[in-house]
Amino acid sequence: MLTQSDLAISKLGEPRHDSPLVFDDVRTRFLSDSSRVLHEIDYCDGDDIVPLGFERAGARRRVFFDASKSKAAIVTCGGLCPGLNNVVRNLYYHLHSCYGVPSILGIRFGYSGLNPKEGFPPIELTPESVEHIHHQGGTILGTSRGPQEPKVMIDFLVEQGVNMLFCIGGDGTQKGAHALAEEVRKRGLEIAIVGIPKTIDNDIQYCYRSFGFVTAVSEAEKVIDCAHVEAKSVPGGIGLVKLMGREAGFIAAAATIASGEVNFALIPEVPFELEGKHGLLGKLERRLAARNHAVIVVAEGAGQHLLNRHGEEFDKSGNRKLSDIGMFLKEQITRHFGAKHQPASVKYFDPSYNIRSVPADAADSLLCEQLARNAVHAAMCGKTDMFVGSWHNHTVHVPLPISVGQIKRIDPESEMWTTVLAITGQDKW
Amino acid sequence: MLTQSDLAISKLGEPRHDSPLVFDDVRTRFLSDSSRVLHEIDYCDGDDIVPLGFERAGARRRVFFDASKSKAAIVTCGGLCPGLNNVVRNLYYHLHSCYGVPSILGIRFGYSGLNPKEGFPPIELTPESVEHIHHQGGTILGTSRGPQEPKVMIDFLVEQGVNMLFCIGGDGTQKGAHALAEEVRKRGLEIAIVGIPKTIDNDIQYCYRSFGFVTAVSEAEKVIDCAHVEAKSVPGGIGLVKLMGREAGFIAAAATIASGEVNFALIPEVPFELEGKHGLLGKLERRLAARNHAVIVVAEGAGQHLLNRHGEEFDKSGNRKLSDIGMFLKEQITRHFGAKHQPASVKYFDPSYNIRSVPADAADSLLCEQLARNAVHAAMCGKTDMFVGSWHNHTVHVPLPISVGQIKRIDPESEMWTTVLAITGQDKW
Amino acid sequence: MLTQSDLAISKLGEPRHDSPLVFDDVRTRFLSDSSRVLHEIDYCDGDDIVPLGFERAGARRRVFFDASKSKAAIVTCGGLCPGLNNVVRNLYYHLHSCYGVPSILGIRFGYSGLNPKEGFPPIELTPESVEHIHHQGGTILGTSRGPQEPKVMIDFLVEQGVNMLFCIGGDGTQKGAHALAEEVRKRGLEIAIVGIPKTIDNDIQYCYRSFGFVTAVSEAEKVIDCAHVEAKSVPGGIGLVKLMGREAGFIAAAATIASGEVNFALIPEVPFELEGKHGLLGKLERRLAARNHAVIVVAEGAGQHLLNRHGEEFDKSGNRKLSDIGMFLKEQITRHFGAKHQPASVKYFDPSYNIRSVPADAADSLLCEQLARNAVHAAMCGKTDMFVGSWHNHTVHVPLPISVGQIKRIDPESEMWTTVLAITGQDKW
Amino acid sequence: MLTQSDLAISKLGEPRHDSPLVFDDVRTRFLSDSSRVLHEIDYCDGDDIVPLGFERAGARRRVFFDASKSKAAIVTCGGLCPGLNNVVRNLYYHLHSCYGVPSILGIRFGYSGLNPKEGFPPIELTPESVEHIHHQGGTILGTSRGPQEPKVMIDFLVEQGVNMLFCIGGDGTQKGAHALAEEVRKRGLEIAIVGIPKTIDNDIQYCYRSFGFVTAVSEAEKVIDCAHVEAKSVPGGIGLVKLMGREAGFIAAAATIASGEVNFALIPEVPFELEGKHGLLGKLERRLAARNHAVIVVAEGAGQHLLNRHGEEFDKSGNRKLSDIGMFLKEQITRHFGAKHQPASVKYFDPSYNIRSVPADAADSLLCEQLARNAVHAAMCGKTDMFVGSWHNHTVHVPLPISVGQIKRIDPESEMWTTVLAITGQDKW
Repeated sequence: MLTQSDLAISKLGEPRHDSPLVFDDVRTRFLSDSSRVLHEIDYCDGDDIVPLGFERAGARRRVFFDASKSKAAIVTCGGLCPGLNNVVRNLYYHLHSCYGVPSILGIRFGYSGLNPKEGFPPIELTPESVEHIHHQGGTILGTSRGPQEPKVMIDFLVEQGVNMLFCIGGDGTQKGAHALAEEVRKRGLEIAIVGIPKTIDNDIQYCYRSFGFVTAVSEAEKVIDCAHVEAKSVPGGIGLVKLMGREAGFIAAAATIASGEVNFALIPEVPFELEGKHGLLGKLERRLAARNHAVIVVAEGAGQHLLNRHGEEFDKSGNRKLSDIGMFLKEQITRHFGAKHQPASVKYFDPSYNIRSVPADAADSLLCEQLARNAVHAAMCGKTDMFVGSWHNHTVHVPLPISVGQIKRIDPESEMWTTVLAITGQDKW
Repeated sequence: MLTQSDLAISKLGEPRHDSPLVFDDVRTRFLSDSSRVLHEIDYCDGDDIVPLGFERAGARRRVFFDASKSKAAIVTCGGLCPGLNNVVRNLYYHLHSCYGVPSILGIRFGYSGLNPKEGFPPIELTPESVEHIHHQGGTILGTSRGPQEPKVMIDFLVEQGVNMLFCIGGDGTQKGAHALAEEVRKRGLEIAIVGIPKTIDNDIQYCYRSFGFVTAVSEAEKVIDCAHVEAKSVPGGIGLVKLMGREAGFIAAAATIASGEVNFALIPEVPFELEGKHGLLGKLERRLAARNHAVIVVAEGAGQHLLNRHGEEFDKSGNRKLSDIGMFLKEQITRHFGAKHQPASVKYFDPSYNIRSVPADAADSLLCEQLARNAVHAAMCGKTDMFVGSWHNHTVHVPLPISVGQIKRIDPESEMWTTVLAITGQDKW
Repeated sequence: MLTQSDLAISKLGEPRHDSPLVFDDVRTRFLSDSSRVLHEIDYCDGDDIVPLGFERAGARRRVFFDASKSKAAIVTCGGLCPGLNNVVRNLYYHLHSCYGVPSILGIRFGYSGLNPKEGFPPIELTPESVEHIHHQGGTILGTSRGPQEPKVMIDFLVEQGVNMLFCIGGDGTQKGAHALAEEVRKRGLEIAIVGIPKTIDNDIQYCYRSFGFVTAVSEAEKVIDCAHVEAKSVPGGIGLVKLMGREAGFIAAAATIASGEVNFALIPEVPFELEGKHGLLGKLERRLAARNHAVIVVAEGAGQHLLNRHGEEFDKSGNRKLSDIGMFLKEQITRHFGAKHQPASVKYFDPSYNIRSVPADAADSLLCEQLARNAVHAAMCGKTDMFVGSWHNHTVHVPLPISVGQIKRIDPESEMWTTVLAITGQDKW
Repeated sequence: MLTQSDLAISKLGEPRHDSPLVFDDVRTRFLSDSSRVLHEIDYCDGDDIVPLGFERAGARRRVFFDASKSKAAIVTCGGLCPGLNNVVRNLYYHLHSCYGVPSILGIRFGYSGLNPKEGFPPIELTPESVEHIHHQGGTILGTSRGPQEPKVMIDFLVEQGVNMLFCIGGDGTQKGAHALAEEVRKRGLEIAIVGIPKTIDNDIQYCYRSFGFVTAVSEAEKVIDCAHVEAKSVPGGIGLVKLMGREAGFIAAAATIASGEVNFALIPEVPFELEGKHGLLGKLERRLAARNHAVIVVAEGAGQHLLNRHGEEFDKSGNRKLSDIGMFLKEQITRHFGAKHQPASVKYFDPSYNIRSVPADAADSLLCEQLARNAVHAAMCGKTDMFVGSWHNHTVHVPLPISVGQIKRIDPESEMWTTVLAITGQDKW
């Protein structure tokens, strides 16, 4: 059970400068640190409402750092996600044009670029180098997976004179950011570590919608359209689409609802069986008998228990297959209908890289801007060990300790999942 | 100041049937009518939180109508908006497949299709007729502007045996829906009148984000990209884009933020001057001197005071021009730079119809499904004189009397507008 | 060596009706059967030009069939290809609206729909059923692979009263069409068999550019962009894209030229080695050393000799893998760099189904219309045992006997391939 | 009547260097100057075929210039067109990477950048500056309209040491190129002037399909789809789309055929009447009576005689309107139906700038590469006073004197136009 103190945000110190925002001639609604956004907002008549809330993100009248003497660094980590370049571009512009920070470094290839031994020196960002990047997918900084030693990274930041680090990445990256903040605290340094959560799977806690998610759903919907076309083109046609979602099936569920062409959606949160009365194969048989084609969407993390169960017979074919639910389903379905001499033609789609490497759409561009801008405000105020989250359509400050290691999943009783059931017509498993 | 009783939802009567949802074997979280979503969710430490909230939308265990004996009708009114066909399709599926309503009428050409004298009889919707429509822009039902006599329309609904009417449209349409609900009340009939707010301008109160808005911003962003390309192609190039937004500049502001290529954004909420120290023409001159090109976005409702002021000299050229801020700006800018013998080439874009007639993107498809599904739940429960709104990412029931006639506008001190100022670099006017 | 008589087109008989084209009030340039398009059009000064030419396609003033008593059938066979629905739609409109043919059947699921035992009765096409289909990928008729007994199919056509059959498909389909035409000839029937060549690989002789090819290249280019983004995002990033092209690498070559981001293009016509001085692995190593990323495009039919050579070690993993050059390359590259402890991260793209199931773009829509229209003219004139080809930007009649069984391939000394070499910078293998 | 000598290409002199192409280890099929592509390729049996042909473009074994001591310049003129950046990029790569030309200048803002007085010094192109430009619309060099003094421009080229100038533009630009070539000839200089025809209208002689045309048709088709959606949404809905085409209606005709949704296509080559039995207004009335909606496409140069005839009554409203056939039709149609009290709602689309400023699609990217590559080959061989054309799918050298001042138009008896008549169902006017 969260308390208000769990939601308190760490600060490097008290503010000591006036904010030199270029638009301060407008009566910007500067916020105070006591501004909150309620954690829970649905209730029943008669309930007491507990005033537990996140700190609201936004510009503060007084900031911690002297922008003119500051140096910021930006690092992008983990898998690609639409919008990374928008975040980099907006961080740059808000730091450079609004606050006047003279130097902003782009760290190359994720945290490995903070370890000099890896041999990837940072690049100095310029207006020209970021001007067009929001029209490109990927990240101009490059990325990598895996941690680096916090000591080494902080040594590097100190050596470079960096006092604000923006860590764009998923749960692992935010864990790394937390370790960096701890190291900063231990040494008594004045370096703000501010995260921007990035998860194409949309599975980070306290981040209602992560950037890139909507673009990914759009791209997934296009692939489902193709699968639908393929499925309808032959008797017994089955379009099988594997989508991203290791721990959480948000992309699969949202693309299913958006497309309206899916008959079976399989996600990690809802186990399913292949055989038996409620098994996928029997359901698929009944669907083909009725309509002669079917579309299946499967999140990559779904049905892992089935893979393990069939493990032995599959070991001979190599380990790689074991973890691939898409190929596994393709084979099981083909085998099942082959044994029954029923026509079934599985067309398999595995579009993950295509989905994650496109530029952000307008909805995600707006979100990226919002997160980047507020991350700059937070860092300038000396906030640290936190990320900028999105909560009930407000941007908020989330302490890293309460988010990292948590995973947001689809509740099988939620509106989202019951909607998937209603739209696909698939029963409870 | 709203009170809880202002937010109370009218009902035709108490529920008398169990809901036969196809997915009721899942433990759907049926909601009770006492479920609320807080109206205000940001506060400051120490504040009391007033438990004022909207009724939450969603399935109820017990419904008012016997679905198997029900007949629904759907009407789409006003200007086109991406997602109309998605709403029609999802209304159809939720009525037909989830509740089992046997007959669903599509009313032709807006409210005029509810007046038999207009000569547009309704069509009976079928699974085949709605199957692919979410891939098409526009509305398969057709639309029209303007009201019809409530008496006439209710006579028609009674004659047709319709007990649920879904009114998809903007403020005028919802006013009409309210009049219909009043007429129903007066006659003591059992016809639920449920609205689904449609406004590409996103200017309806209690509807945080209206469907079609995000798609419109995406399309607008593409046009701004073209304007940017044109502007940069010649010395003194000026790309001028008129976007939708009669009363509120949400599309202009959001497209400006998403695109990042706009130098001046002009909206109805923020008056601006042409001449003088803070005037647009002088600012434009300074921009061209510095960068040799500029991009201007103007909402159609911006700067109307300027048009009136220049009214007399323009009367000769016909009234049509008077209200067109885009053409007016094009002429004023051309005249201004022509008089100074400075190169300036205005490329004018007026993409309104292109923007509103495309199919909905994935984000809007999701929203359309959410609104349509909850509108069906509401109607089945006998809720009436209300629309389904979107509030802090929850779907809620909004009484028509508190919304109609209100217009949501951009607050010039809000985060959205100060962000526009920061990104464009344009000063306060 | 072709002679003019090889290019002669079979006819069911001499024309006996005037063409009732709806646009005949325009002085349509009706063509005679002696109109030709030269086979070879490049020559050197002083050369004699041999007047060998294809019969030009187009409307004839006098036709063979009485349209008002005719019945046409359309069949689509083989793999999906952008434009199938356009061809169906344009065949329908030209038969129905221009000539007034009262009944046009859509044969279901390829040639199997011409065999009553398969249980797929034809559908009667209507203006409504074809109105929107050009915006959909795939084929509304469905498709299948493989032949049926010509006798059975002709029996069916006779029973149905069909006197024109349009066979849309690749080399196998045209072989089938030829067999049908022979059967018709043997029985002395009056059924025109007219082919429309369909090959996404663009590998049919006497068909300069097949419909769907340009759309496929566009889609392939988008995937290559994604591969490029992925490749640049990590040190040693390698984007590997498998494209269609069993016997001919036209899609791979054209997408390479159009995209300008490819470093290695591998096609069936140009064998390559993995190991050794000129081997792919060594070249890739040098490329990564120089630029740290690479993009490889491989046609599915490329490098089959390598797969056979490695056959034994791969038998354990199942036969499926043997034929998949993409997965094979992914493994070989990963193994090679792994053994050298050099960073290399292969991102593999296999977008075939996505590419072939999208709607046709405008260039292909134009081509589909052109082929369909001229196929209708040809069939109405009683031409048979032929397809409509595209030659030097003219539509021509090609006798099936000279085309079937031939495959068009990229000449490694041609402008197309040397351009690929120039653009990729890859050397001769 | 053309003779072979009309098609002779001017040369600065005889070749004196071996071609240093990077891919010369491949047995490139070097062509000789006696290679031809036939001018006319359709004939009738028995006809003699006159060996009149264009010089084939392509690499020659021996070139005129020493690449290592050469300096090239590229200029883009006139209106924007999809593919300009592709041409610039491919010129750069073929000059730089294939031939090894060390310095390539980008001339700013059309011919005005060749006049030092205009104040736009050229930029030195680099691999980095052109790397991504083919994904951007417009031209990174900028453009302008109108000529400059040949003397001044040649002085500038001499001063800069440029020996190859590539002039990308329409008929006016090629006229300018011809004047430059004459000036070079007069002075006895060794500067090759090579044109690349650019006309989004596709109206340049000896250029079968100009780059950007197919992309423009694709974009136009999208707008027509929107117009169709709008037209069908209200009773008496009329979607009116003005497309590019001052002298020739190729875009309008091709977009009409590709889209299949147009009822009336109006082009400059085919005069039409508004009033009377065969007039547009009457036809439109009959169409609305039958189907209740209509789509009209009008090329900007169509119906100019109507505008002049109505000239007087319009003078009061300003001259600008006089030349705008789109606005004129909108008003005439609205007036006509208004007077008859018939419902008619005209939705007017004027998408010209949107169409011309997008990036090239794959088909145009391929064409741009082909033209640019062959232009480099031609210039390196000292060819001058010519452009690279596209003839029967071959690239050829076209002498400027036979092309400039000519305009290619749609023949109203051609297959293209009779197809438009057949597809729209519009009669001869």
